[in-house]
Amino acid sequence: MLETISMRKAFIYSGFARKSLFSVILAAFSFISAFAQNNTLVFQSDFGLKDGAVSAMKGVAVGVSPDIKLYDVTHEIPAYNIWEASYRLVQTAPYWPAGTVFVSVVDPGVGTERKSVVLLTKSGHYFVTPDNGTLTLVAEQMGIQEVREIDEAVNRRKNSNESYTFHGRDVYAYTGARLASKVISYEQVGRKLQPEVVKITYQKPSFENGKVIGGIPILDIQYGNVWTNIDKPTFGKLGINVGGNVKVQVFNSKNKVYEGVVKYVNTFGEVREGSDVGYFNSLLNFSLGINMGNFSEKYKVYSGNEWSIVLSK
Amino acid sequence: MLETISMRKAFIYSGFARKSLFSVILAAFSFISAFAQNNTLVFQSDFGLKDGAVSAMKGVAVGVSPDIKLYDVTHEIPAYNIWEASYRLVQTAPYWPAGTVFVSVVDPGVGTERKSVVLLTKSGHYFVTPDNGTLTLVAEQMGIQEVREIDEAVNRRKNSNESYTFHGRDVYAYTGARLASKVISYEQVGRKLQPEVVKITYQKPSFENGKVIGGIPILDIQYGNVWTNIDKPTFGKLGINVGGNVKVQVFNSKNKVYEGVVKYVNTFGEVREGSDVGYFNSLLNFSLGINMGNFSEKYKVYSGNEWSIVLSK
Amino acid sequence: MLETISMRKAFIYSGFARKSLFSVILAAFSFISAFAQNNTLVFQSDFGLKDGAVSAMKGVAVGVSPDIKLYDVTHEIPAYNIWEASYRLVQTAPYWPAGTVFVSVVDPGVGTERKSVVLLTKSGHYFVTPDNGTLTLVAEQMGIQEVREIDEAVNRRKNSNESYTFHGRDVYAYTGARLASKVISYEQVGRKLQPEVVKITYQKPSFENGKVIGGIPILDIQYGNVWTNIDKPTFGKLGINVGGNVKVQVFNSKNKVYEGVVKYVNTFGEVREGSDVGYFNSLLNFSLGINMGNFSEKYKVYSGNEWSIVLSK
Repeated sequence: MLETISMRKAFIYSGFARKSLFSVILAAFSFISAFAQNNTLVFQSDFGLKDGAVSAMKGVAVGVSPDIKLYDVTHEIPAYNIWEASYRLVQTAPYWPAGTVFVSVVDPGVGTERKSVVLLTKSGHYFVTPDNGTLTLVAEQMGIQEVREIDEAVNRRKNSNESYTFHGRDVYAYTGARLASKVISYEQVGRKLQPEVVKITYQKPSFENGKVIGGIPILDIQYGNVWTNIDKPTFGKLGINVGGNVKVQVFNSKNKVYEGVVKYVNTFGEVREGSDVGYFNSLLNFSLGINMGNFSEKYKVYSGNEWSIVLSK
Repeated sequence: MLETISMRKAFIYSGFARKSLFSVILAAFSFISAFAQNNTLVFQSDFGLKDGAVSAMKGVAVGVSPDIKLYDVTHEIPAYNIWEASYRLVQTAPYWPAGTVFVSVVDPGVGTERKSVVLLTKSGHYFVTPDNGTLTLVAEQMGIQEVREIDEAVNRRKNSNESYTFHGRDVYAYTGARLASKVISYEQVGRKLQPEVVKITYQKPSFENGKVIGGIPILDIQYGNVWTNIDKPTFGKLGINVGGNVKVQVFNSKNKVYEGVVKYVNTFGEVREGSDVGYFNSLLNFSLGINMGNFSEKYKVYSGNEWSIVLSK
Repeated sequence: MLETISMRKAFIYSGFARKSLFSVILAAFSFISAFAQNNTLVFQSDFGLKDGAVSAMKGVAVGVSPDIKLYDVTHEIPAYNIWEASYRLVQTAPYWPAGTVFVSVVDPGVGTERKSVVLLTKSGHYFVTPDNGTLTLVAEQMGIQEVREIDEAVNRRKNSNESYTFHGRDVYAYTGARLASKVISYEQVGRKLQPEVVKITYQKPSFENGKVIGGIPILDIQYGNVWTNIDKPTFGKLGINVGGNVKVQVFNSKNKVYEGVVKYVNTFGEVREGSDVGYFNSLLNFSLGINMGNFSEKYKVYSGNEWSIVLSK
């Protein structure tokens, strides 16, 4: 997974590249209808796949429209981890066609006060979710076109409001399915809100005194790679070329957990097995890994708000 | 997942609520055709997703009908756990439209004597499975309309009976796919049996001497909540209102594993983080949890036949 | 999962068994079009389901063709384990209809020198993958009809070659989706190569001096059964009938890990719970298990190139 596509550019991709007059017309039409829902519903949650919760949501969606197309981001978001929910959405959504509807249910505040919303991004993607920070990164990177609050008086599964409800199934899956399959229009979701969402604050990368400082938002968990939020331009200020060495310090709060020198490479294959490397991942963010190894496990480096990283020449 | 919809009422939901003459006609028609298969096949098993068994079943189904729609309850039923298979079906099936066909393969007795059946419930759902107790709860809660034995002379994958077979793939997935896609009618499954299924006996909740006694059929595993089978009316005999305290004792056989007092709440948000609570889950059964915590792990309380719970004022 | 269908014979199955002239004509037609893609794309990887990588691949495929049908073998191949990728493909692919396109991405060499290919087997299945050994077993058992190299000048997602790419998403999923949905023909994948693939060498079973020697390619991980590569004819040279005893020794390199006598059975139900058994699995390969138990965990017997097994009377 040595992937280094800029996600910010990725949704420029349209898939309409056939070289003909017909395709030009088609492209024009698709520009007009860029925000039209495409009957595709993609789920994300922290429910896991061991019980029936995800299946109940999908059953409700199929009950709304038997021909709807259902997919998943993941259901293995760590319980209550809104930050990771936000991250997985922005890592994934740009690769789905415009018009796709996402339902994300990571909802520690269920039953208490938080709005249920549908965000339409400038890229033409819809996000149905509690507005609890889940939309932080898609709002920043894909742009806010419009935000609407779900009107539960109409957009709630019949017979489901007699008691405290499973919102993922009775409100979010139900509304997402009706929106995706055009049973309702985006306007019918509910009243228009100010074009803003609840945001999680997080450390942005910076360069000062010859050092780059950043955060560690997430791990590439399957391979144990450590993904920072240090982008290429900021890293560039260090003046280190591919093949050069980078001094790395990783902190958990004030405690130094890792200190070392890694080779800056394009691909893991450039070093021997077992070597630490620095590279740019699919988000074009600086990352740490070990060729055929697991950096996170070896050095006990994990991700989250309390982690930071300092790079120097 | 503070969900408290009664599953017994949930399948009343029909999805045909459009207010027009057309929809009335459509609803009448759908009543008549409530038992018609709807080309939707939902799998459940204890196979896990690490090997190719689930994929082989789906390949067989797609081979039967390329346009069939395939979904899953879960494939993470603990190995051989028929009780949990039964529980996951009844937790999920009511949320799928009538006409949906379920294939459940948790089959410790494969290769020995047990019938292969298709149950049609009064709600219009089909269940294709070995009749080994898997149908206990759907039969009780969704009602038995008819039971038929799979005639393997016709309803078995071609060339699959030369040797000992993988029934999940060669009989259940194959028959389920043919039924769902209307290659065969329900009658063509095989001969009609008595309208009964093999049932697992389990402790029902009761009230005596001022105490409520019940079982712990299952955990809400992702969050570590403990789900009892104590329903709201039985709990109501204790005379405890929302906001009041409940004395709880949990036993593994005769050994007391947990003793404590929990606050009876509607939602976790009513107590501070880390507090034990009692609440009613989506089945309207009394459950134990910790706000932002894992009750099961903290107190080593698990589920199954040997676990019981006693509640008092 | 006491399954003993020969996988070698399994893809003879055609699904066209209706007894009519129409079906004969249809069968003839389907013979001619056996290699036509059927709009079905099946993914396999070592990405796991915890992050967004699999979802990004599926989003790209839906962007290519909104009506494509997407399924999975598994995404839980152990990281970088090409052998297991090869095994899971051959365990699964024969049960999918001819014309199905598989995308397998277990790619430790990404970014370095290895060809990206599409194999068409004699059975009419397509496999899109890095040619790194993943095709070892499907090539042997399903036969090589033709091999083509993916021409990344045309078969790569637009705007994805500005930087180091995520090949699973930008080349394999993209090409697989275009092939499955007939946006491109098989010829348009790229230039024809020699009809051969990179193969992993592995120990074949043999009989000498009254003993059968074999390897342990894989575990039946969900149940803890140990699957050898000893086929029925080779085992047959020992002259042991069903119900008889087999002496078993298992080695990790030169170290004996297990020595015991197991009963040779057709089904686990023939012995009491907890007994060790030998049986033939769905590949008709000799396997070790415990009735209602986990042979692998109990005796610390695992799979891979360094494991071997010796059977005698």
